[in-house]
Amino acid sequence: MIEDNVVFIGNKPVMNYVLAVVTQFNNGSVEVTVKARGKAISRAVDAVEVSRNRFLQEIKIKDIKIGTEKIATDRGDSNVSTIEIVMGK
Amino acid sequence: MIEDNVVFIGNKPVMNYVLAVVTQFNNGSVEVTVKARGKAISRAVDAVEVSRNRFLQEIKIKDIKIGTEKIATDRGDSNVSTIEIVMGK
Repeated sequence: MIEDNVVFIGNKPVMNYVLAVVTQFNNGSVEVTVKARGKAISRAVDAVEVSRNRFLQEIKIKDIKIGTEKIATDRGDSNVSTIEIVMGK
Repeated sequence: MIEDNVVFIGNKPVMNYVLAVVTQFNNGSVEVTVKARGKAISRAVDAVEVSRNRFLQEIKIKDIKIGTEKIATDRGDSNVSTIEIVMGK
């Protein structure tokens, strides 16, 4: 889940990802990027908002990017939306 | 659903909102803002990505903001995440 200051959002409860973000900053990271795809995008926004509002008041959102990725499935290629939220001081 | 160049994303199929966005640009809007709360945030990103990739190649994403709103419920106040995506030429 944690890798090079990136937190990938999956299907776990939001607080798991909040903890991952807060831990990265507490370990000295200057920037943390939260990434998600598909339905996890809403949870990514929740994780960033809870991190900022409850635990990291001095941290700002530095950049938000959205995009589309092609994913190979049994029934051919499928498009999935992505989000990347960069948080930093 | 359409009001002052704003498209509010709810629980309908993504293509309904894509149609709303494309219609606004075709009617002469220079900017269209897509707004969503909670679980609809993922659908908002889908609607923007499908609009751009399939129908509005010349339109760019000008700004993305996320935030938190307090909502009064039966069981007291509850926080919900929000997103605003501004699209324009």
